[in-house]
Amino acid sequence: MPLPSAYAPRLWIKISMSVLIVGSTALDSIKTPTSENPKLLGGSASHAAVAASFFGPVRLVGVVGDDFPKQYVKLYERHGIDLGGLQMLPGKTFHWSGEYELNMDNRRTLLTELGVFETFTPTLPKTHQSSPYVLLANIAPSLQSHVLDQMRRPKFIVADTMDLWLNIALKDLLALIKRVDAFVLNESEAHQLTEKNNMLHAAREIHKLGPKYVIIKKGHNGAMLSGPSGLFLAPAYPLDCVMDPTGAGDSFVGGMMGYLAATSGPVEKKMRRAMIYGSVVASFCCEGFGLTKTTKVKRRDIDKRVRELEKLIRF
Amino acid sequence: MPLPSAYAPRLWIKISMSVLIVGSTALDSIKTPTSENPKLLGGSASHAAVAASFFGPVRLVGVVGDDFPKQYVKLYERHGIDLGGLQMLPGKTFHWSGEYELNMDNRRTLLTELGVFETFTPTLPKTHQSSPYVLLANIAPSLQSHVLDQMRRPKFIVADTMDLWLNIALKDLLALIKRVDAFVLNESEAHQLTEKNNMLHAAREIHKLGPKYVIIKKGHNGAMLSGPSGLFLAPAYPLDCVMDPTGAGDSFVGGMMGYLAATSGPVEKKMRRAMIYGSVVASFCCEGFGLTKTTKVKRRDIDKRVRELEKLIRF
Repeated sequence: MPLPSAYAPRLWIKISMSVLIVGSTALDSIKTPTSENPKLLGGSASHAAVAASFFGPVRLVGVVGDDFPKQYVKLYERHGIDLGGLQMLPGKTFHWSGEYELNMDNRRTLLTELGVFETFTPTLPKTHQSSPYVLLANIAPSLQSHVLDQMRRPKFIVADTMDLWLNIALKDLLALIKRVDAFVLNESEAHQLTEKNNMLHAAREIHKLGPKYVIIKKGHNGAMLSGPSGLFLAPAYPLDCVMDPTGAGDSFVGGMMGYLAATSGPVEKKMRRAMIYGSVVASFCCEGFGLTKTTKVKRRDIDKRVRELEKLIRF
Repeated sequence: MPLPSAYAPRLWIKISMSVLIVGSTALDSIKTPTSENPKLLGGSASHAAVAASFFGPVRLVGVVGDDFPKQYVKLYERHGIDLGGLQMLPGKTFHWSGEYELNMDNRRTLLTELGVFETFTPTLPKTHQSSPYVLLANIAPSLQSHVLDQMRRPKFIVADTMDLWLNIALKDLLALIKRVDAFVLNESEAHQLTEKNNMLHAAREIHKLGPKYVIIKKGHNGAMLSGPSGLFLAPAYPLDCVMDPTGAGDSFVGGMMGYLAATSGPVEKKMRRAMIYGSVVASFCCEGFGLTKTTKVKRRDIDKRVRELEKLIRF
C-alpha cells in the first residue's frame, strides 16, 4: 500500500523514525450514565497509533472485517498512519461494548465479539520489519511475541497489556516480558503480577522479569517510571470533564512512543518528557468518546498542555 | 508554664513566627497485620506540632489526662513545643485504637475512649491569642471555632477535618469553613461534602463555602492545591516501607504550616513549597509507628527529601 497522501507534507519526515504499532483495531460501543455511543473507532492500536501520529510516522499492524467503516480508514489516513500492515478479512470487525459508572472509574464489559480477530495472525510487510521503534499495544501476548519474531533488531520495544492476559495467558506474557525494553501496566495489574501492594516493590519484581524500564499507570493519578536513572513521577493533566476514559492508557503509550521515535538522543534522556507527552495525549482522549476529541487535537494543543503541566508541578 | 529549655537555643527564633496548633492529643494503639503498638503518642495536634517544630516555634493547645506519660511531655519539649496551652486534667487521656489491613489503605477503629477530651474546651493563654499562624488540626469544628473566637487578627488560618465531623457536625463545620483561609480534607471527604466525583469540581464548590485555598489530600498520590494562582499538584514522596500512616495527614498540614510561618514573603508565593515540605514530613511519619520515626528526623533529612522530590518530578 502506498503512503497515504496526508503523510508526505508533514515536517517530521527528516528527523523522526517510524513507530510500528500492533494491537487491536475495534469498534467500541460505549455506554455511560448519560449517553450511548455505538461503534466508535476503538482498539488499543487505533488509540496508540493516532496518539503517536502527532509526533512522527506510524505503521499500524492489525486486522479489521469487511464491515469496517470507510470513514475510519480515512481517519487513519488523515493522521498519516501507514496502513500497509492492516489486514482486511471477510467477516466482522472486533466489537467491544462496555458501560461506565458515574465516577468513570468502574467499567463493565457488556459484550465482546471477536470476529476476524479470532484467527488473526499479524504478518509484517517487509518494509515494516526494520522499524526502529516497536509498540506492542494491548493484544494477546503470543501475538505480541509473534510480531517481535518478525522484526530485525529494533532499537526500542515497549509492551502494554491488560488483566485478561494475566488471567488466561500468563506464561505467554512472561515469555514476552523478557524480550522488551519497557513494560507498561496499571497498578492493579502490577499487584496481580507481583503480589506486591507497594508499587516500588512491584516495579523491582518486574525488572527481574527482564525489562529495563517499568511504567506503572495510575489513571488520573499519573504514572510512575522505574528505570536506570531511578524513579520518575509523571502527573496526569487534571481534567474538568472526563467523557470516556476508554483508550487513555493506549493513548499514553502511543504518545510516549511517538515522542521517543520523533526526537534524537538516547532513550534514557528523553523518557521522562516522552511520558509527559503520553500523559497529555491521554488527557485529550478522555475528553471525548472514543477518538472524537483526540482526532480534533493539533500538535500545538499538546505542546500547550505540556507547558501547563510543567507549571502545575513547579514549586 | 515557662518555655521549655529545648526552645531557647534554636536558630529560627529571630526570623520565624509562631504557629498555634489546636487539635487532639491522644494515646494511639495501632495494630497492623504484623505488630501491635500500644499507647503511642498520637492525636492530630501531636503529629502536626512535631511536624511544624522542624521549621519554627510551635504553641500546642490541647488536653491530656493525669495518666499522660511524662516521656511524651519530654518529647514535646525536645521539639521546642510551647506547652503553655496544654491542659492537664484529672482523668484519662483520649485513647484511640485502630487496625490496618495489609495494604495500609483500609483502617478500622477498634476503640475510642474520649476521657478528658469529652469536656475539653480550649482556652488560650493571653500570649497565644496573637499567634500569627493558626492551624486548626482535626478536632470537633465547634472547638476549632472556639479557638478562633479567642484569636486577635491572625495572619493565616488553616483548618483540617475528618469524615466524622461531616457526619455528625456538618453545620458547625460549614460555619467554621467560612472563617478560614485554607481548608484541608481528603478526596472522600471532599466527595462527601460536595457530592462531586471530580476533584476540580469539588474544590470549586468548597471555595464557594469561603476558603481562598482548598487542599485535597490524596494519600500516597500526593495532594492538590486550588488557590488564587490556580492549581498545584504536590507529589507524595514514594516510600519503600509504610509502617503506619496514622497521623500522615496531620504531619502534612503541620509541616506545611510550620514552613509558612518560618519563611518570609506572601503566603501565595510560598504555598507550593510549603505543601512539598508538608508532604515530606508526612512521608517520614509513615515510616514508623506513631511519631517514632518523625521524632528521629533532622531538618537536613527533610531538606534532602525535598531535593529528591524535586528530581523525581523534573522532566
